[in-house]
Amino acid sequence: MPVGLKEPENISAIAGLQLASMAAGIKKNGNDDLVVISIDSSANCAATFTQNAFCAAPVTVAKNHLASEMPRALLINSGNANAGTGDIGMQNALQSCQWLAETLDCSPQQILPFSTGVIGEQLPMTVLKAGIEKISNQLSEDNWLSAAQGIMTTDTVAKAVSKTITLDNKAVTISGIAKGSGMICPNMATMLAFIATDAAVEADFLQQCLSSVVDDSFNSITVDGDTSTNDACVLIATGKSGNKSLTATAEAQIFIDALADVCMQLAQAIVRDAEGATKFVTVNVLQAQSKDEARNVAYTIAHSPLVKTALFASDPNWGRILAAVGRAGIEQLDISGVNIFLDDVCIVRHGGVDDNYTEEKGQKVMQQDEISITVELNRANKSATLWTSDLSHEYVRINSEYRS
Amino acid sequence: MPVGLKEPENISAIAGLQLASMAAGIKKNGNDDLVVISIDSSANCAATFTQNAFCAAPVTVAKNHLASEMPRALLINSGNANAGTGDIGMQNALQSCQWLAETLDCSPQQILPFSTGVIGEQLPMTVLKAGIEKISNQLSEDNWLSAAQGIMTTDTVAKAVSKTITLDNKAVTISGIAKGSGMICPNMATMLAFIATDAAVEADFLQQCLSSVVDDSFNSITVDGDTSTNDACVLIATGKSGNKSLTATAEAQIFIDALADVCMQLAQAIVRDAEGATKFVTVNVLQAQSKDEARNVAYTIAHSPLVKTALFASDPNWGRILAAVGRAGIEQLDISGVNIFLDDVCIVRHGGVDDNYTEEKGQKVMQQDEISITVELNRANKSATLWTSDLSHEYVRINSEYRS
Repeated sequence: MPVGLKEPENISAIAGLQLASMAAGIKKNGNDDLVVISIDSSANCAATFTQNAFCAAPVTVAKNHLASEMPRALLINSGNANAGTGDIGMQNALQSCQWLAETLDCSPQQILPFSTGVIGEQLPMTVLKAGIEKISNQLSEDNWLSAAQGIMTTDTVAKAVSKTITLDNKAVTISGIAKGSGMICPNMATMLAFIATDAAVEADFLQQCLSSVVDDSFNSITVDGDTSTNDACVLIATGKSGNKSLTATAEAQIFIDALADVCMQLAQAIVRDAEGATKFVTVNVLQAQSKDEARNVAYTIAHSPLVKTALFASDPNWGRILAAVGRAGIEQLDISGVNIFLDDVCIVRHGGVDDNYTEEKGQKVMQQDEISITVELNRANKSATLWTSDLSHEYVRINSEYRS
Repeated sequence: MPVGLKEPENISAIAGLQLASMAAGIKKNGNDDLVVISIDSSANCAATFTQNAFCAAPVTVAKNHLASEMPRALLINSGNANAGTGDIGMQNALQSCQWLAETLDCSPQQILPFSTGVIGEQLPMTVLKAGIEKISNQLSEDNWLSAAQGIMTTDTVAKAVSKTITLDNKAVTISGIAKGSGMICPNMATMLAFIATDAAVEADFLQQCLSSVVDDSFNSITVDGDTSTNDACVLIATGKSGNKSLTATAEAQIFIDALADVCMQLAQAIVRDAEGATKFVTVNVLQAQSKDEARNVAYTIAHSPLVKTALFASDPNWGRILAAVGRAGIEQLDISGVNIFLDDVCIVRHGGVDDNYTEEKGQKVMQQDEISITVELNRANKSATLWTSDLSHEYVRINSEYRS
């Protein structure tokens, strides 16, 4: 059950972009598993990819293709990650691009492939070929919701966000979809997320915009600490809104802020729909000496199975949070300066239990669906925020039954 | 259910050491929760402690006391960690030492206190005082098993190991007990473990012996990646066997090897009895550039919730192991050199699925209670071995119900 997240409605179309989704037969359950997003030739495109050394074949191909030409289409399958599949996996990714290029009349280098699902199995090329031959007939500007559904794996609801701003006196829209529920700990990259805008944005600056927002959105979520082999985030700017093409100027900040908001909402949607999640948890670490130090403490809390099971149990077992802060490896941490809060209830003051803390106060916060944990380190003024979920029976069930 | 671990039998007494265990009333379930180990005045003693910055009050007191005098007794309670308890917790730890010192007629600085259990609650001083006043009458050389039981928290069986060697033509015995089942990821220290020998060992050399063996035993296990606030390991040498007092000579290696074996067996016993464990898993990482690099990869695998749930499910979902290796942060890892084995079944060869691998072969290994995962990095010749457990429904149940 997702936490505070409903099926999206009213996803705005982006002029210059058409989508299609279908059930090609890759997933055994008959759900949609193949999505194509075709892109107008005037559009610019930026992307970030997983830092996992075992990146999947489609990630390698997409990186190479993006480096050579602006893409005309994204080819996305769910149900199979095409990761850990060696030379055959690489050939299959390239072959898929070839097939789609033929139906769209462009070069294979103009196709970016993406795969998500089980690692270590080869793509079913026969059903994939049949799907690719059919899907181009179904492309439409209005298929955002079905595309969001088509890229899902263990997700329980589709994830999509739209936002409209004014740039250069023109209405500019940003729409994005994302998938992800487990194996979530993006590292300098993201989960599968596809975001588009009708704004005109210079190609180099578009990549700068994306890189500047992923750190505080997709790179600030964790479900289980496991960085996927297939993470990717693509940002497309079609330029159809008619604004003067954006570069690094003061006005561009309006666009970056809106993009950051879309990315943060999509990132949070992934955590709200995390495998087995019953809680949506914000971890704030304040007063650190560096952002890295703050993020390290936040991740140590967010990855602790003991903290996560206490959250699942709605148990204000704050000693587990304190123990996580203590083992985060901060050099010369003066614990007498450390304060810890559950929402606005102070549980630890100056390194020990707060004089005014009662189990009843802690219990009240822990029973909420949405909880914030805030740690003050009293060292300097750097901070970091992460979003995470709890560790439930359902997480274990989902991940012990995933392939069966 | 512990994996391949039975209740210990025949724990050898150590001349110069007496033990007692009782139910003082700290634990709500009426089990033993107070243990005293009294030490002959001729003995030497060495110890290692947790590196968690939020170390518990008794850890701080024990460190200070050990630095000032050779201890005459260890005072151990289970059911309450006396951690995160501020000044009152510190006063309580000191007061407990004072009470035991009075009954044993020694100085409070000669008492080392240890606590294990729930974090963040004050010790129940009234029942503790009554217990300490009574327990000294029950001291005996033969109480090793009841002491092993008295220090348990979520452990399901007591953990104890004895070993006899010959030194200087004298029979020398090493006996040790340990506790631990969750919050297990000792960092440059250990869980609660108390080891004694009747060998004569010089004080400085005794500490060297202990420090040299903990890295490959207690510091090489992990259940959940959570380093406790209360970890401690104590090694006592009473000197009663009559051997010439050991220093750093060639013969001393016999003693160090035996000590290493006792520590490794106790450490493995903790993992075999890990909270909710159904598997005992050995993770070997070979051909790394440094031991740190090998350990880092091994911990990344051992801490992955996805690998741990696949182990629980007996599912040879080796893509999760490969993804963990890929995200371990090794610089310039050439994945085409990486091989991965389940026991002696090669699953990944040169970075892709091995030509001879079949799901059936993987399944056969995964269904065993004891499994080894071996990763060859093909970079240099350093290696590391860790022991860990799986992540089961029972782990979530135990840790979401622990305080209720």
